[in-house]
Amino acid sequence: MKARVHVMLKTGVLDPQGEAVRHALGGLGFEGVEGVRQGKVIELDLADGTTEETVTEMCEKLLANTVIESYSIEMGA
Amino acid sequence: MKARVHVMLKTGVLDPQGEAVRHALGGLGFEGVEGVRQGKVIELDLADGTTEETVTEMCEKLLANTVIESYSIEMGA
Repeated sequence: MKARVHVMLKTGVLDPQGEAVRHALGGLGFEGVEGVRQGKVIELDLADGTTEETVTEMCEKLLANTVIESYSIEMGA
Repeated sequence: MKARVHVMLKTGVLDPQGEAVRHALGGLGFEGVEGVRQGKVIELDLADGTTEETVTEMCEKLLANTVIESYSIEMGA
């Protein structure tokens, strides 16, 4: 089974990568780009029967730095 | 309006970041992790009326390296 985890910087945490992308898009002539946030997506291929609780534990222990990052989990994606 | 872009390495392209995560999860005692792929997610805050074609152009020109990466776009996410 598959699970997909999104890890984004929390609101209010400075995102220099996203800011660089916003600036570069402006430089390429794209107008109206008001904000860009860049995060990670992690696709996990798991043994059948793995629960969302296990994936939550993976996020808390390894995948996200919960001080500055938030995560969301989609099971079976 | 919002748009969300996922950028993943194409199948067959070596993903050392994903491999490192897989190994680390094993080391933490999580069993049954058969594969991990790590990619980027980019959340764009765009002027109203921006079309998906414009976002596709952003992906082709800047957000993805289409030689090794594939992308998918969700509008209004």
